[in-house]
Amino acid sequence: MANSWVNSAERIGVDLHLELSGSGGRRAALIDALRAAVRDGRLAPGTRLPPYRSLAADLGVARNTVADAYAELVAEGWLTARQGSGTRVAERARPLRSEQRARPPRHAGHGPVTAPPRARAPRHDLRQGTPDASAFPRAAWLASYRRAVQQAPNEVFGPGDPAGRIELREALTEYLARVRGVRTTPDRIVICSGFAHGLRLLFGQGGGGVLRGPLAVEAYGLGFHRALLGVAGVRTVPLSIDEHGACVEELERERAVLLTPSHQFPTGGPLHAERRSAVIDWARARGGVVLEDDYDGEFRYDRKPVGALQGLDPERVILLGSVSKSLSPALRLGWMVLPERYVEGVLAAKGEREAWASVLDQLSLADFVSSGSYDRHVRRMRQRYRSRRDRLVAALAAHAPHIEVTGVAAGLHAVLRLPPGTERSALKAATWQGVALDGLAAFRHPDTDTDMPTRDGLVVGYATPSEHAYGAALEALCGVLPPGEATGVTTGE
Amino acid sequence: MANSWVNSAERIGVDLHLELSGSGGRRAALIDALRAAVRDGRLAPGTRLPPYRSLAADLGVARNTVADAYAELVAEGWLTARQGSGTRVAERARPLRSEQRARPPRHAGHGPVTAPPRARAPRHDLRQGTPDASAFPRAAWLASYRRAVQQAPNEVFGPGDPAGRIELREALTEYLARVRGVRTTPDRIVICSGFAHGLRLLFGQGGGGVLRGPLAVEAYGLGFHRALLGVAGVRTVPLSIDEHGACVEELERERAVLLTPSHQFPTGGPLHAERRSAVIDWARARGGVVLEDDYDGEFRYDRKPVGALQGLDPERVILLGSVSKSLSPALRLGWMVLPERYVEGVLAAKGEREAWASVLDQLSLADFVSSGSYDRHVRRMRQRYRSRRDRLVAALAAHAPHIEVTGVAAGLHAVLRLPPGTERSALKAATWQGVALDGLAAFRHPDTDTDMPTRDGLVVGYATPSEHAYGAALEALCGVLPPGEATGVTTGE
Repeated sequence: MANSWVNSAERIGVDLHLELSGSGGRRAALIDALRAAVRDGRLAPGTRLPPYRSLAADLGVARNTVADAYAELVAEGWLTARQGSGTRVAERARPLRSEQRARPPRHAGHGPVTAPPRARAPRHDLRQGTPDASAFPRAAWLASYRRAVQQAPNEVFGPGDPAGRIELREALTEYLARVRGVRTTPDRIVICSGFAHGLRLLFGQGGGGVLRGPLAVEAYGLGFHRALLGVAGVRTVPLSIDEHGACVEELERERAVLLTPSHQFPTGGPLHAERRSAVIDWARARGGVVLEDDYDGEFRYDRKPVGALQGLDPERVILLGSVSKSLSPALRLGWMVLPERYVEGVLAAKGEREAWASVLDQLSLADFVSSGSYDRHVRRMRQRYRSRRDRLVAALAAHAPHIEVTGVAAGLHAVLRLPPGTERSALKAATWQGVALDGLAAFRHPDTDTDMPTRDGLVVGYATPSEHAYGAALEALCGVLPPGEATGVTTGE
Repeated sequence: MANSWVNSAERIGVDLHLELSGSGGRRAALIDALRAAVRDGRLAPGTRLPPYRSLAADLGVARNTVADAYAELVAEGWLTARQGSGTRVAERARPLRSEQRARPPRHAGHGPVTAPPRARAPRHDLRQGTPDASAFPRAAWLASYRRAVQQAPNEVFGPGDPAGRIELREALTEYLARVRGVRTTPDRIVICSGFAHGLRLLFGQGGGGVLRGPLAVEAYGLGFHRALLGVAGVRTVPLSIDEHGACVEELERERAVLLTPSHQFPTGGPLHAERRSAVIDWARARGGVVLEDDYDGEFRYDRKPVGALQGLDPERVILLGSVSKSLSPALRLGWMVLPERYVEGVLAAKGEREAWASVLDQLSLADFVSSGSYDRHVRRMRQRYRSRRDRLVAALAAHAPHIEVTGVAAGLHAVLRLPPGTERSALKAATWQGVALDGLAAFRHPDTDTDMPTRDGLVVGYATPSEHAYGAALEALCGVLPPGEATGVTTGE
């Protein structure tokens, strides 16, 4: 029996003589080896283990070492010990099924929920929604992160304030005032992990938030946001869009409206000045609130940025912003600028402690903003994206002069207007040519008034490709556009 | 009129002659100055602005510069321009109320929801739930972060996989197998921002998750978890606790049970081996699932860690872990080890992209784990916490030998058993002496069977104070314990 157990031990890979020499090490090694053997099925369920003294003698270890190892594995549930029947391998330790079913890939597009899954990288990626990932300012970010971690007081590594680090809220107060005309104080800013998290905090789970539906939204917008609101039990009601942006005069019984005032997403223009005033007047008269999705406010090319709507009335507008377009979605950092009356409720929804946004990244972003690195990066990216925008416009003027380009004064995407009824075939051609982009139809709210004409168009994200891949992507894009009569290029707002 | 406008311009702080010399700079400066003046109320609502040409002449700038500035501010809604009435300051630009109402402090304890708000740092902080914030391994973490950011492929800075970075899931697969006996593959791990996020993903919003209530929980546990589940619409049903841990034989119609098998929170012991087997048998027989809260499994002092229950049946146990105790809650990183059948549903609940956990921190943690820094840190902290545990036990033996100490074989806290009916007065004495800690009563599930005796006790977190503050905290603790007859110290599991 003793011999057979030496063999068993060898068979299951235990070589205690070669393992650590301390007795603690031997016990640990024996435990690991026995556990591995049970786990792998080399010691089958029900198998009876040798008595302590036999195995101890065979292995040249103390009896207590074996006894300890058995006891530990009994405590962990690998072995069972019953009076009179010795120690056995437990019945329930089934080996893990090693075959993994192939699962569908998870890289679905962020845009319309109907977007095809991001199965593999397309040859030419012109989808909207992400900045140029090759342009992340690694060195400058690392410098900020290092300063932040080195200079952080110890309490940073303990439980965090759900409002977010004060350093970041102060830096954002100054930055947003200067660059976006936002009027706030650090106490009215709550840090979150991005726009979607902000929406969730505002509307809560099944109505637990500070806001209630129905929520008016723009007839064209991100299906992803509509889906997220739907899950939270919030009905969305579409507002028509015309050449002046969302038709806010359609607002009725809703108590809240979600807008992209600086750069309508995805169709392109800013909300007309009169509509900006009108929606604030509506909010004041009805006790309503405007959610301002300030997703790309920093990227305006032909004149100074349109200031945030929030500046018109900080008690009637909630501004939501993030670094997802300006820096990278990999950081998962965003902010909400709140009217005073919502602060407590949003913090309550967030929980007792910071449970979401990395506190070290928060400190790093605070340093990045206050040191001027953020301004420098935005300036550099603005130049890069403007040059891409110009190349897109020029390529279309040369190769598809009948296609109208809109929404190019700002942002990271443009809309190519297509003749009615041609969007679907253009998308098919694009897929065929390995060009990934979205059609306008995918962004249209399903309940949109049928009086509002359907627009055919392609949403072209010109930030996504890396610098060297952009030329080829443009060329491929021009190749999939429907042919037409030359009518001169229009490059409207 | 011209003169009065030069004066106005001076009054509102515009000194274009000293500003940037380029015309873009002048326009921008004029816009900023005018906007600031409107915002601050120096230019009152309704005030009529001078005609372009007058202001241009006064300031020595081109007429177009003034026209552009006015147009921009009209577009932003600060000014209004109506045919025949010139340009005026808009009516709605109210100044921000500058007074900030004092809000109650937000640093509430993480433990029982009934905990008093963390208004200011107590003199002696012995609350459970956080590691020693002064021990964060800044240099090693920074080294990992630097390597991660420098070596990351560009796609890291684009949209992320909701499962989490593969590098981290691979590192965790290896680490958890080696240290916790967890059997999994990277495909069954989903990264999240911590335990609470994991719970939310599993149970969804109002029933949208992969699991449904009612959920059995231990009669003593975190009120914070119960509250969170309550918000998600999940009813919790308490299981009694005895000297062998949770009485899993009480499980009835529930389909899921939340346990702390390695170290019952907060009472202390590991789940007995027979109960470990029994709960797995229950899950198999009833199609149930066990949620394993592996919150401090790495900190076991007197023998090798009790392996994770998950290793007994990876298809019946969901393991939830995080770095909140082992490293810092500031990182907001956790993981779920899932049975294969739940993976798709949890990813669907998480969203199309990584929207929660910082991707750079994920890569940094992957490096931290695979480089061995994590093991070194855990080893160092285990020594530190064991020494604190020993000092606690010794101090009690010397100064309060009638107090039984339990739950000290592992973790970052101990439970001091008190004579029946003395907990409340001990807590009062503690508050009086500036010692912050929780009583056992605060952790008891409100629906606990009245047959289960109430336990009087103090939950002492010995990890929270910094190294130099610990001695004084122990001394203060001994001062608040109820007096009693010496009966010898028991330092049970």
